Amino acid sequence: MARIAILGASGYTGAELVRLLATHPSLRVAALTADRKAGAAMAEVFPHLGHLALPTLTRIEDVDFSAVDLVFCALPHATTQEVVAALPRDLKVVDLSADFRLRDMAVYAEWYGHEHRAPHLQEAAVYGLTEFYRDAIRAARLTAGTGCNAATGMYAVLPLLEAGVIDPDEIVIDLATGVSGAGRAAKEASLFSEVAEGFHAYNVAKHRHMAEFDQEFSRAAGRPVVCSFTAHLAPMNRGILATVYVRGEAEAVHAAFSERYRAEPFLHVLPLGQTPHTRHVRGSNYCHVGVVADRRPGRTIVFSALDNLVKGASGQAVQNANLMLGLPETQGLEAAPLFP
Amino acid sequence: MARIAILGASGYTGAELVRLLATHPSLRVAALTADRKAGAAMAEVFPHLGHLALPTLTRIEDVDFSAVDLVFCALPHATTQEVVAALPRDLKVVDLSADFRLRDMAVYAEWYGHEHRAPHLQEAAVYGLTEFYRDAIRAARLTAGTGCNAATGMYAVLPLLEAGVIDPDEIVIDLATGVSGAGRAAKEASLFSEVAEGFHAYNVAKHRHMAEFDQEFSRAAGRPVVCSFTAHLAPMNRGILATVYVRGEAEAVHAAFSERYRAEPFLHVLPLGQTPHTRHVRGSNYCHVGVVADRRPGRTIVFSALDNLVKGASGQAVQNANLMLGLPETQGLEAAPLFP
Amino acid sequence: MARIAILGASGYTGAELVRLLATHPSLRVAALTADRKAGAAMAEVFPHLGHLALPTLTRIEDVDFSAVDLVFCALPHATTQEVVAALPRDLKVVDLSADFRLRDMAVYAEWYGHEHRAPHLQEAAVYGLTEFYRDAIRAARLTAGTGCNAATGMYAVLPLLEAGVIDPDEIVIDLATGVSGAGRAAKEASLFSEVAEGFHAYNVAKHRHMAEFDQEFSRAAGRPVVCSFTAHLAPMNRGILATVYVRGEAEAVHAAFSERYRAEPFLHVLPLGQTPHTRHVRGSNYCHVGVVADRRPGRTIVFSALDNLVKGASGQAVQNANLMLGLPETQGLEAAPLFP
Amino acid sequence: MARIAILGASGYTGAELVRLLATHPSLRVAALTADRKAGAAMAEVFPHLGHLALPTLTRIEDVDFSAVDLVFCALPHATTQEVVAALPRDLKVVDLSADFRLRDMAVYAEWYGHEHRAPHLQEAAVYGLTEFYRDAIRAARLTAGTGCNAATGMYAVLPLLEAGVIDPDEIVIDLATGVSGAGRAAKEASLFSEVAEGFHAYNVAKHRHMAEFDQEFSRAAGRPVVCSFTAHLAPMNRGILATVYVRGEAEAVHAAFSERYRAEPFLHVLPLGQTPHTRHVRGSNYCHVGVVADRRPGRTIVFSALDNLVKGASGQAVQNANLMLGLPETQGLEAAPLFP
Repeated sequence: MARIAILGASGYTGAELVRLLATHPSLRVAALTADRKAGAAMAEVFPHLGHLALPTLTRIEDVDFSAVDLVFCALPHATTQEVVAALPRDLKVVDLSADFRLRDMAVYAEWYGHEHRAPHLQEAAVYGLTEFYRDAIRAARLTAGTGCNAATGMYAVLPLLEAGVIDPDEIVIDLATGVSGAGRAAKEASLFSEVAEGFHAYNVAKHRHMAEFDQEFSRAAGRPVVCSFTAHLAPMNRGILATVYVRGEAEAVHAAFSERYRAEPFLHVLPLGQTPHTRHVRGSNYCHVGVVADRRPGRTIVFSALDNLVKGASGQAVQNANLMLGLPETQGLEAAPLFP
Repeated sequence: MARIAILGASGYTGAELVRLLATHPSLRVAALTADRKAGAAMAEVFPHLGHLALPTLTRIEDVDFSAVDLVFCALPHATTQEVVAALPRDLKVVDLSADFRLRDMAVYAEWYGHEHRAPHLQEAAVYGLTEFYRDAIRAARLTAGTGCNAATGMYAVLPLLEAGVIDPDEIVIDLATGVSGAGRAAKEASLFSEVAEGFHAYNVAKHRHMAEFDQEFSRAAGRPVVCSFTAHLAPMNRGILATVYVRGEAEAVHAAFSERYRAEPFLHVLPLGQTPHTRHVRGSNYCHVGVVADRRPGRTIVFSALDNLVKGASGQAVQNANLMLGLPETQGLEAAPLFP
Repeated sequence: MARIAILGASGYTGAELVRLLATHPSLRVAALTADRKAGAAMAEVFPHLGHLALPTLTRIEDVDFSAVDLVFCALPHATTQEVVAALPRDLKVVDLSADFRLRDMAVYAEWYGHEHRAPHLQEAAVYGLTEFYRDAIRAARLTAGTGCNAATGMYAVLPLLEAGVIDPDEIVIDLATGVSGAGRAAKEASLFSEVAEGFHAYNVAKHRHMAEFDQEFSRAAGRPVVCSFTAHLAPMNRGILATVYVRGEAEAVHAAFSERYRAEPFLHVLPLGQTPHTRHVRGSNYCHVGVVADRRPGRTIVFSALDNLVKGASGQAVQNANLMLGLPETQGLEAAPLFP
Repeated sequence: MARIAILGASGYTGAELVRLLATHPSLRVAALTADRKAGAAMAEVFPHLGHLALPTLTRIEDVDFSAVDLVFCALPHATTQEVVAALPRDLKVVDLSADFRLRDMAVYAEWYGHEHRAPHLQEAAVYGLTEFYRDAIRAARLTAGTGCNAATGMYAVLPLLEAGVIDPDEIVIDLATGVSGAGRAAKEASLFSEVAEGFHAYNVAKHRHMAEFDQEFSRAAGRPVVCSFTAHLAPMNRGILATVYVRGEAEAVHAAFSERYRAEPFLHVLPLGQTPHTRHVRGSNYCHVGVVADRRPGRTIVFSALDNLVKGASGQAVQNANLMLGLPETQGLEAAPLFP
């Protein structure tokens, strides 16, 4: 059993890691940290985990990292780069923050408003989109979790750019996400009464996940790609649906997905003409992809759906940890979605 | 007081008409019909209206139309054209179905799968998008309610085509709607457990409201316009948000809206850069429009939000009835939105 | 037109007062205060009110109370008593906080944990349960808004104690409330993800609204009455349903309600055997009451439903203001519920 | 691997059985039936299970029961007794319907409105409340799934009657349940718009689960027990919370639960004074129980929470199947709850 520390266990992605590890046959929770809740039992912070035998929450500085094989880091942006820089050099780290996603430090500074404090780590980090960086992740010491919206959009676009079946200059990604992606921080905008029974866009034209799209789309296309992107908040806990408008033939688009994802255990391509629901992947590590021909010739609409807390965050993290530890990639991640 | 009959009062749009008329100073409910519920009190069918003094539900054939000044027809598609054809010739009719929306009978047959059974009525009908057909509505005997999704999209696009500030060949309309638009029919797809906690697209590339877009966008642009369009079902009762990707400068787009809607009582243009929420128009006849410059030069993202049962259906109907009866256009429609 | 100031306009009950006043024929908003948002437009704080012409938010000390006829005070508990004490002596005040609900200052200190800072005002205040204090409210300078849960329970119990048709020692009130009752403060417990898709009890055996039950039930029964009470949080914005278990015959119980509420404009007694839904009073000032005979002889189950922000708070406040200003009691409050 | 047939796989409990079996190490789905969907793939009926290799849906008469070790029967009431009567005599059956819950055939006829058609099976059936019938279930050929509301209430009451720490004549069970308990049938009352954003009671004083309470409470108390009971529909997919008002001391009540459930793997007693949330057991086989002293001396309020589709139906069924097949009782059921 590999010994796991989860830094930042009092947030939703931290709790989701604990949930996934509870039935993982090869990973065991050895330490849980939450600076402001240090000393508390996990059952107080997350009663749904109250039946599990778990270590008490501690401060990061009280963790004995010599007894840890891999760290999941579920801390806020910016804090993360300092915490990871202070960890033992040989400790494997699966990060879930935004801190190590962007390879170009100038781009990082532009989108995040300050210079990166651990650029050497950023250079070493591998982008954690498993299906597109699998070999590098196997060999990595540090992997960077993708943005949850970014992952959803990329699953619907990257194979098309790789296969050259769409026009890279005409990509519109329109997306709706559940509220848990905003985390457990007490913010007015995340209150039930501000979210339920309504729908709205947020961070329009300035959403930071666009920096990830630019980086990965350009890599896949072999030349600069800039897309249009809008994220909306939907009144639900979990799930992201991306609706992507592309220029290309639906058959070719569908074939590119089928070919690219054929052997992927968690990417499920629906028959041409069918579209996914976020509720059909809820709680699971699966991502469903659908393709429909637009009524306008030469245009196609692509859909991808995943659970932001699983395939978009903690499930992806476990999948990458499995690879980094030499375990079967799907271990602990094969639970079926919870519907309804 | 004008005497009003509501045909099809056992559906959500019928009930919404009753709600709006309950405080309307010049309209009085004289008859309510619901064939399958004939004989029942409205309080049995819609307990939220139980405190009102309302006529018992009857069959259409039992209504004394000589004592009626205007009919709201909230019946299903196809049935409607036969019912309206049988009404007294001089009776004013505000229809809420899809039956009289399309002026070209060949287009109607193509989208609805059968020949129209009352083409002479279709010719006489005025498309009920009040702000764009106001004078014709004033003079009309029969107005056709717009599709609720269609209205939302049109409020975000028509002024731009009229003003010539966008490229008519590059319009993508992506939209999320609440569930009440599907009506009160007992369908598996409308069950709570099939709708709550999830998000999905429906009728992709074949949604009938696209026929209305084609008709009205082409009229506004003075040449054929075909857009891309996807509707999604959001887990909420009421509300539609359209997110529209256009080619044009944001300032010009915003100026076109501000100019076109300046005197409109129910269309509220937000400051440039702000975006609407459906929850902020809930239960009201208001439509909020927002404009944000895309990060890609020359591209703009437009948002419009309205309540599908009010401005998208029954509120529009009352607004048009006010015009047809020579009443102040906003009468009975000025209640503020219900939030939260 | 009476000139109205709303103190604490940045909370949900403040916004709801503005909504109700927007179509009130005799009340006009003259001043809006919100200390932390002073200088902001109401449209920034509550975009759903953005189409209204409203005064800018100010600090309380910047209000010219000489140009005000009545004040609605929607401030937090404890703050309120100091603010109201500092208002001009002759200014009519409708308070929505907990500060003036309890007539016995010792009881107040026991439930709220500190001595009352304006006991002379408490003595003058009239408990704002309109149907049971109508004459006193008409003559009052200061009325105290009831707890929203308290109002719901009292509408289901007080007529039974007055009529003597139930055993005062055996009352169990079990209740579910929507989230808006917790206000707009950014608290973890009010986050969408902590409220949606779940149900739980809160403040069990220590909910402060029990002090109001004790006070009013004892008054109605003419002797001390103590009930059992549990409040639950339901995943919805608005609405309270009280389910009350009493000892008494269902027919007598139903008759007591029918008799007591016969002339009440906002209290609607359902036929014996029918039960109310909160969604059927949503957004309105109506309260629905239902009675069902328990299967155990001599026991009856009573239900009452209202909208916590309207009949449970701001609607009640307007109703009382109407009385205090000599206006028709129902003015501005007759909008039908919004369903769905 | 034991070979399993699921009869009635197109309903929510059928799909939930498939979900649980997907990761069960000792049970394998050998046949799935759904008469009206025979010939369809499970992926068409339940896309969330689309990634699993599953048999095509068939009619019951097309199942080769000689290749089946145990049948889960998730069919409607009344149909079930005929189907089970026609199965091979030696085939183990775990039923999820109401058909075999009541031991007294006269009571069955009274509550269900017709004579039982397989009284010999009813005599042989064991009531499936695992923690209270474990030994009999191990030896049973046929177990009867409990009502989901019934199970929730019984977990909060049975230990108290067994221990004699409460007054059997004064039990009030007030409960809220999610919508999935009503199944996937297309009924107006289960539509999103009829359920969301509201709360109401249903089947008051005539809910059939009361027959189970009477049977089991009387058995536990050793004398006739009749309780008061009200079920409410909460706007959520999954979860039941029972709030139970009893006469007895909180400490004794809490001690009775702690003692009785100490060794139970799925029953988790919270510290005295804490109360459960349904969202903290969502998707899991756990049941949380909480106890709070009422403010009235000698009275106590008990809470129990479970997921109606898991511990209240399909999880209970798997737990009982494990026992009947000699497998470890908790096998396949230890996944942690899904929150948020």
